[in-house]
Amino acid sequence: MTRGRFISLEGGEGAGKSTQARRLAAALDARGLRTLVTREPGGSEGAEAIRHLLMQGAVNRWSPHTEALLFAAARADHVEKTINPALGAGIWVIADRFIDSSRAYQGVAGGIDDAAIMALHGFGARGLLPDRTFVLEVAPDEGAARATGRDGAAADRFAARDGGFHDAVAAAFRDFAEREPDRVRLIAASGSVDAVTQALLAGLGDLLP
Amino acid sequence: MTRGRFISLEGGEGAGKSTQARRLAAALDARGLRTLVTREPGGSEGAEAIRHLLMQGAVNRWSPHTEALLFAAARADHVEKTINPALGAGIWVIADRFIDSSRAYQGVAGGIDDAAIMALHGFGARGLLPDRTFVLEVAPDEGAARATGRDGAAADRFAARDGGFHDAVAAAFRDFAEREPDRVRLIAASGSVDAVTQALLAGLGDLLP
Repeated sequence: MTRGRFISLEGGEGAGKSTQARRLAAALDARGLRTLVTREPGGSEGAEAIRHLLMQGAVNRWSPHTEALLFAAARADHVEKTINPALGAGIWVIADRFIDSSRAYQGVAGGIDDAAIMALHGFGARGLLPDRTFVLEVAPDEGAARATGRDGAAADRFAARDGGFHDAVAAAFRDFAEREPDRVRLIAASGSVDAVTQALLAGLGDLLP
Repeated sequence: MTRGRFISLEGGEGAGKSTQARRLAAALDARGLRTLVTREPGGSEGAEAIRHLLMQGAVNRWSPHTEALLFAAARADHVEKTINPALGAGIWVIADRFIDSSRAYQGVAGGIDDAAIMALHGFGARGLLPDRTFVLEVAPDEGAARATGRDGAAADRFAARDGGFHDAVAAAFRDFAEREPDRVRLIAASGSVDAVTQALLAGLGDLLP
């Protein structure tokens, strides 16, 4: 049994991550691969319970340190119960957000050292990294407009933060791509949804069987 | 303003920790000190929400690593929102369980290195240690009988574990007392509730004003 590949999609609010996760999975299915689409925080029963604590309530409900511990706990459960079993069964896993969101949101934008975020990840999820990470880039105001347009849903604790916070997150993702060019790739996500899916597939060329 | 003192009570299920926490607070109140009784997991609004995730569900709901991250998150919130503000206001804080429970349950009995537990504590709660920790010791079957006798309440995820687990927890607490004799004191808790309270007060002789 060949182990499946692990792909994460990252980016700000409204960049099209969940849409592209589904479209990428369909494209891989059409090539005969088995796929699983999952999301963070969440992706397992326990992690979804932790998600409720993380996404609801006042913006300052948790300190950055407490928040980082909760994300690490949710991710540990997600990896143990969902991601690793799927990869071991040969399934390709596509995650809507993973460790790079913690590094960008709690780390760079929240003021916690990247080494500390990675130490929590090493403890909880044994340091699992995606085989490839795509950062979907849109202009911040375009992403905000898309996120706000959703079914009248109230903004969650992260979407509700100010522009400076979201600029710091976007800069963090670009920095990760520069520092880990083999794993992390920037994808221009302002074009048609089909063009973005094609760009993702092209970015998997070296991993596809 | 003289900073308050921080006292934790530790021990297995049914050792009398919550009863003695209230009695000790009353005795300190009578000496003119201001006191706050709190408990773990919990002790702040956020930490009580995390407590629900920790205490309910199947015994193996969380891996030891995920569980350790959740306890560290709850403790970080408890220290930030409840314990540190009280100590800063000159209040003596008496906690029913604190970091030594994580070291005993997730650490020694759960198989996680003490250094890793303390690293999470250093990250989340900035490594805060009690000024004094009392381990209330009863025979394991006596504690189990007391815990089971409570209002017909269902056993929580920890009380439901087997005898070997509880023996390992008891041995861990004795080991902490041996290694940190100035902070951690063993208290024989099989006697009358009044005798145990007097032993706790005697054990605070060097800290009382």
